[in-house]
Amino acid sequence: MTDLQTTLPAKISKLAIIGVGLIGGSFALKLKQLGLVDKVCGCGRNQENLELAVKMGVIDEFALQPDLVVADADLVIISVPIASIAPIYQQILPALKPTAVVSDVGSVKQSVLDDIAKLLGEVPNRFVAAHPIAGREQSGVAAVEADLYLDHKVILTPTETTDQDALNLVENLWQAVGAEVSSMDAKAHDEIFAATSHLPHILAFALVDMLNNSKDLGNVFQYTAGGFRDFTRIASSDATMWRDIALNNKAALLAWIRNYQQELDKMSKLIAEDKSDEIKDIFAEAKQARDTHVLHKTSC
Amino acid sequence: MTDLQTTLPAKISKLAIIGVGLIGGSFALKLKQLGLVDKVCGCGRNQENLELAVKMGVIDEFALQPDLVVADADLVIISVPIASIAPIYQQILPALKPTAVVSDVGSVKQSVLDDIAKLLGEVPNRFVAAHPIAGREQSGVAAVEADLYLDHKVILTPTETTDQDALNLVENLWQAVGAEVSSMDAKAHDEIFAATSHLPHILAFALVDMLNNSKDLGNVFQYTAGGFRDFTRIASSDATMWRDIALNNKAALLAWIRNYQQELDKMSKLIAEDKSDEIKDIFAEAKQARDTHVLHKTSC
Repeated sequence: MTDLQTTLPAKISKLAIIGVGLIGGSFALKLKQLGLVDKVCGCGRNQENLELAVKMGVIDEFALQPDLVVADADLVIISVPIASIAPIYQQILPALKPTAVVSDVGSVKQSVLDDIAKLLGEVPNRFVAAHPIAGREQSGVAAVEADLYLDHKVILTPTETTDQDALNLVENLWQAVGAEVSSMDAKAHDEIFAATSHLPHILAFALVDMLNNSKDLGNVFQYTAGGFRDFTRIASSDATMWRDIALNNKAALLAWIRNYQQELDKMSKLIAEDKSDEIKDIFAEAKQARDTHVLHKTSC
Repeated sequence: MTDLQTTLPAKISKLAIIGVGLIGGSFALKLKQLGLVDKVCGCGRNQENLELAVKMGVIDEFALQPDLVVADADLVIISVPIASIAPIYQQILPALKPTAVVSDVGSVKQSVLDDIAKLLGEVPNRFVAAHPIAGREQSGVAAVEADLYLDHKVILTPTETTDQDALNLVENLWQAVGAEVSSMDAKAHDEIFAATSHLPHILAFALVDMLNNSKDLGNVFQYTAGGFRDFTRIASSDATMWRDIALNNKAALLAWIRNYQQELDKMSKLIAEDKSDEIKDIFAEAKQARDTHVLHKTSC
């Protein structure tokens, strides 16, 4: 026993997960395995998926209506597409107990806060906006892994009015499932993830779309190998989810696409003008940066 | 024993590999394991690397001068950076026996043929231009794998004057090490690989370069996960090799960068104008194309 034990969260009696897929499901399963939650209630639109979640031990019981699962819940995780977070919140609000903490898992944060403020009149001080960085191109409860968050980051974007106890609870639970938790401003979050996540997804979708429409070359995909497969892996992500992310982080994403176009202009000019040394330097610095900062990270 | 046995190549007595790295080394090792070559002689500039190659059983002996290893060779594989292929060919030409077949492994084909024609006066009819599609970001003899080419494509780009026996020999040996061999025109090859390989490398280098220079965001790489790691894996490729590829396939590559910029213009416009359905359709079609044509390929 070490002092760290004292930082573990108090056990919570009831966790409600609205949207039982990879992200919410993996969180719930790990908390159950750790004995940090007595009961998990799931909600979703697909009964088969929810029955599978019960069978897999991810949730204990379920309902198809969000307001039915949140009664008596200590913590509610709204794990649905970003455009649906505020409407769901509005729907469950009357059924929440006053001390209930609500959190989400959306990849964009400012628009979620704005939507909640708009629909609910304000952002409730027991709402803790959160973004676990562990997306995959797979989704659904079948992909759930108790150790999904081990060594992954979770970013919280509290506002000035966020309740400190609510923030602590969410932070402690994410730490308990293995994540490295940090906080930042919602706008800073959206700016960073526009660059590191949303832009790469657009780039991958755009490349596959372009090649798929270059019919005069035949099926060029047959001439691709491992490099192309990895480069385009994120183009196998869910279309609706990424459409919503693009539209809900529009300003930051469009700015990064413009920056990237300028970068491509620079590369084109160097290639057109045979600037051999400059091109090599850019490639070498990029390789160095990636090998230093990205290569040795643990798996997905 | 099946009829396929009769299509196996005649055993060759001596194979010379100039540039003993992943690509040439893996080819040589598999041929030795199959008993299809009596002796493999390697050439390179790094004696330590060549000693390791002997120790690993990739080559039997080595020399540091190309002309010294090609004497009596039945087949010479010039496995060096594309800009060096023609100069090396010129250097070994006087030492080759008349029946020797020469081949390469360059990722660009027309410029290699052009450079050879320029330096040698013509493309010798026993030269067979070849491109094995099995690059990795790792290189060097330590990365050699006998089964590297299993289920991978090798593209040959013979000219009108290429000797049929020479072509057959190279085709049979690549098939013997497990590759699926096909032929096409050098210009068509360069056009296709500008799109499927050279452009993605530029895109990955450009993204990492841009983020590495966005110092006002701090070290954004710390907020990346598996998607970013896979997307940028090819940005860890060798800078000199990819500089040479970019400059030696300049016209096709610049045209594809322009096409891609137009694709990004289209995406930006759709996002800026909230064209929700169109964006989702493009993402969904890209996902569908990738899942159909790319996802289920065997590993790297």
